[in-house]
Amino acid sequence: MSPSLVANADLSPVTSGTVKGRVASVYSELQTSRIDHALPLPSVLKNPFKIVDGPASSAAGNPDEIAKLFPNLFGQPSALLVPNGADAVRSDEKLKIGVVLSGGQAPGGHNVISGIYDYLQDRAKGSVLYGFRGGPAGIMKCKYVELTSNYIYPYRNQGGFDMICSGRDKIETPEQFKQATETAVKLDLDGLVVIGGDDSNTNACLLAEHFRSKNLKTLVMGCPKTIDGDLKCKEVPASFGFDTACKIYAEMIGNVMIDARSTGKYYHFVRLMGRAASHITLECALQTHPNITIIGEEVAAKKQTLKNVTDYIVDIICKRAELGYNYGVILIPEGLIDFIPEVQQLIAELNEILAHEVVDEGGQWKKKLTKQSLQLFEFLPQAIQEQLMLERDPHGNVQVAKIETEKMLIQMVETELENRKQEGVNKGQFKGQSHFFGYEGRCGLPTNFDATYCYALGYGAGALLHSGKTGLISSVGNLAAPVEEWTVSGTALTALMDVERRHGKFKPVIKKAMVELDGAPFKKFVSMRDEWALNNRYISPGPIQFTGPTSGDVNHTLLLELGAQV
Amino acid sequence: MSPSLVANADLSPVTSGTVKGRVASVYSELQTSRIDHALPLPSVLKNPFKIVDGPASSAAGNPDEIAKLFPNLFGQPSALLVPNGADAVRSDEKLKIGVVLSGGQAPGGHNVISGIYDYLQDRAKGSVLYGFRGGPAGIMKCKYVELTSNYIYPYRNQGGFDMICSGRDKIETPEQFKQATETAVKLDLDGLVVIGGDDSNTNACLLAEHFRSKNLKTLVMGCPKTIDGDLKCKEVPASFGFDTACKIYAEMIGNVMIDARSTGKYYHFVRLMGRAASHITLECALQTHPNITIIGEEVAAKKQTLKNVTDYIVDIICKRAELGYNYGVILIPEGLIDFIPEVQQLIAELNEILAHEVVDEGGQWKKKLTKQSLQLFEFLPQAIQEQLMLERDPHGNVQVAKIETEKMLIQMVETELENRKQEGVNKGQFKGQSHFFGYEGRCGLPTNFDATYCYALGYGAGALLHSGKTGLISSVGNLAAPVEEWTVSGTALTALMDVERRHGKFKPVIKKAMVELDGAPFKKFVSMRDEWALNNRYISPGPIQFTGPTSGDVNHTLLLELGAQV
Repeated sequence: MSPSLVANADLSPVTSGTVKGRVASVYSELQTSRIDHALPLPSVLKNPFKIVDGPASSAAGNPDEIAKLFPNLFGQPSALLVPNGADAVRSDEKLKIGVVLSGGQAPGGHNVISGIYDYLQDRAKGSVLYGFRGGPAGIMKCKYVELTSNYIYPYRNQGGFDMICSGRDKIETPEQFKQATETAVKLDLDGLVVIGGDDSNTNACLLAEHFRSKNLKTLVMGCPKTIDGDLKCKEVPASFGFDTACKIYAEMIGNVMIDARSTGKYYHFVRLMGRAASHITLECALQTHPNITIIGEEVAAKKQTLKNVTDYIVDIICKRAELGYNYGVILIPEGLIDFIPEVQQLIAELNEILAHEVVDEGGQWKKKLTKQSLQLFEFLPQAIQEQLMLERDPHGNVQVAKIETEKMLIQMVETELENRKQEGVNKGQFKGQSHFFGYEGRCGLPTNFDATYCYALGYGAGALLHSGKTGLISSVGNLAAPVEEWTVSGTALTALMDVERRHGKFKPVIKKAMVELDGAPFKKFVSMRDEWALNNRYISPGPIQFTGPTSGDVNHTLLLELGAQV
Repeated sequence: MSPSLVANADLSPVTSGTVKGRVASVYSELQTSRIDHALPLPSVLKNPFKIVDGPASSAAGNPDEIAKLFPNLFGQPSALLVPNGADAVRSDEKLKIGVVLSGGQAPGGHNVISGIYDYLQDRAKGSVLYGFRGGPAGIMKCKYVELTSNYIYPYRNQGGFDMICSGRDKIETPEQFKQATETAVKLDLDGLVVIGGDDSNTNACLLAEHFRSKNLKTLVMGCPKTIDGDLKCKEVPASFGFDTACKIYAEMIGNVMIDARSTGKYYHFVRLMGRAASHITLECALQTHPNITIIGEEVAAKKQTLKNVTDYIVDIICKRAELGYNYGVILIPEGLIDFIPEVQQLIAELNEILAHEVVDEGGQWKKKLTKQSLQLFEFLPQAIQEQLMLERDPHGNVQVAKIETEKMLIQMVETELENRKQEGVNKGQFKGQSHFFGYEGRCGLPTNFDATYCYALGYGAGALLHSGKTGLISSVGNLAAPVEEWTVSGTALTALMDVERRHGKFKPVIKKAMVELDGAPFKKFVSMRDEWALNNRYISPGPIQFTGPTSGDVNHTLLLELGAQV
């Protein structure tokens, strides 16, 4: 227990003059210790390999339309790396590769870049890696930095995207494609790795198609990133960052659970980040066993109303009160509001009305609402009504994401409990506490799993580019096995695509992977939730460990989806 | 990286039929691994010891009044444990000891109880330990459980207070003292350990005095608990739980910092638990180096207004904008509002007015406010105005603790930035994100420091009771040294006391230890905050580790107060 504080250790000797991003940084002892954490590689990446092409691919939907949108790429096979069986042939080829981070932060992004860099060092010595700064805008504006060994070093196994930062721009218009092409030509790029979510990988594929159609040599490789966990399929079993983010949230939830049980008087309503999909909420439920968990996809499938959701919560609270429990923990996905058809309807009507009508204090404007929407509006707590009326985005639309669903539910539950008390049905006490866990999870130190997974994704992306592949997404599989046995491949991005009709045109999209109600994680949850509701089966996972017990754990969702027993 | 999920491991074989509190619990792998974590003891506790009394004590203030309030206890010396120098004399005495948890949760409480239990097992075999359930009410109602080896085992090194739960009742009235006396007699108690904060330890001392005045054999020992860190003095260098809670908050703050730097477009306003004192905020600042930290005690000492605080924040935001930084992290203590004299004045006036006046929509009622308070009221964002008017406690008073200071400050900063933009002084972008970190930190797995410190506090309390001491608070010192060298003693609770005049009578109080503006932690902070404001020196401490790097770290506040270099 001797104090060992090196928090102020200045890393400047390590980072040297070339480091821009973190030159002014000071590191905690844990951050410092993680830099040199050695990352295992799948054995196929440790030895000479060759590429084996799979069968011709199709699309996730509407293959004819996808074929039209991607004439140069559609149908290309996936590419699997297998041991060469021969001695290593050292390549003399020197590559120029660019890399970009796109969209929201996810723990592990820096390791993807480290993986690409190390591949080039190991297998194509003398190659150059450029990091485009600030996301896709960096490609369009040709804003980049050369990533050297010194530059990358302090970011190894570190959270955040601050090595080159990210951005939410898309390369969409002909002018923007032209700018991207100019950058590729100017930098003489052999390849580009786009690290992003569903939209960014769609964009990567469009770029790959564009470059090929222009006979550019620049190849494009995607990489699955998002804490939300909604970019995955059979070939791409996980998006990176999900593991770390869920474990950070689960640590907090577990702590709140022990607090709830110790205090005995609060219901904690915890809203969890995760956009449209409820993967994070489901995973956190599997890790911690809350009393109530709302899964948006189930709400949508059952066409539940806000009243249904409220009643479900209140029913359990009343049953728990009978058992003497006036406390509990309730998990709510960020996207819940979006899953409820009646809410979507109300918001659509409000957007229409508020765009054209004057909102009078007397409430005459409400007559424009359909009966069902009016009923719902009146059912909402006043604060939420005001939020719906006042908070608008630049287009004048209601800002659904800003609605604090957890606070809304607390108020609706309070009201319903009061009703039942009047009827003599409920005799319990209720005090709600609201929480939102989001930003805390996006930039944590990556777990050992995310650190290793990302490194393999990056290393594999380098290998695929080196092998002349384009329009693929880096895919690392067999993740329930030891790292040495992980598979490394590239999956045709067109194979993940479907089309959506927008403004009268077909647009390619990688469909978000939502929680599947017949999938193993949800079924596991369903098999246990009634037990969790009334009996307290709280589990507190504790903080992420980097050595010792739990440091090698993988999240439940991934293991269950891979068929492992959890 | 092999999956190692024993999250569902049922502990029932371990906990056996006698376990009540966690009989239904399932443990995470980390929780399980912590149970058997071996705790080192200070060497004085590992060997035969004797008690050396110090000089006669006085009081923290008004010793004459304290002497009158505690005629049987005032002036008693502190008691230091020193090596016996002789062989162990095995005691045949069997003790009956009670223990109670009082007030809010703090990580480590279970270890205090384990320490008491183990002392009795080691040194007074055959003794009995009773745990009073639900706080002091458990003493008054004689609601208790016998704490056996099996009962305690699953709680070792675990967070929470759920072994026997806590409560906020006080033993105050003659009737309540009578009930407590009846319990002591009924259970034939030789001693009672009260684990709590300043109020609870005051109560413990009153109980000790009462028992002695009645010639009861029951001795009473206090124990310093609170995450807020405001129960400490020279003899009691730290309250337990502070170390763990601060590290949990610092993990989250560090993650949010990396997020802020990666995204580059948000100012995160983080409100931190800690009641009246700003120790937690100061410690988190020392651990993470935020751009702006508000310390309530400084605001009070400088008699700052809300406008001053807002201007201080806005000035830095504008300077950062000039440097190209439109992001940052700002820490705010929970008790900030209470430190601002003008706000206290406004609230006092509102309480008075709202108790007697009808609040008219036209705002005529506002004429009752003094000019200064009216000005402040009009300066507040509308949402806060409404909160002040609407949210009342059962006594009709404004609920200051419910005010979301972080959101209030965001709105005030927005307004001021808009003013400056109009004047052409500010050209930056500002987006605020609010956070409140509180409940997440009260029940985490105790750090190695808190686990060890608490165990020594409990073991020492057992030794002091066994030595016939009463009215002391268990005190473990020399905490910057290795555990073997820690000192163990009991400090006279009356020595920590002063009096306050309430309802025309003197009431004894242990004064809350506030952040001292000439103390080492604050001075260290002041020496660095300007640097942190404009240059980003963020440190991300990462999650608490139980093995490996950082697992032996002690918080900065404690080390600085002990004179160590940090």
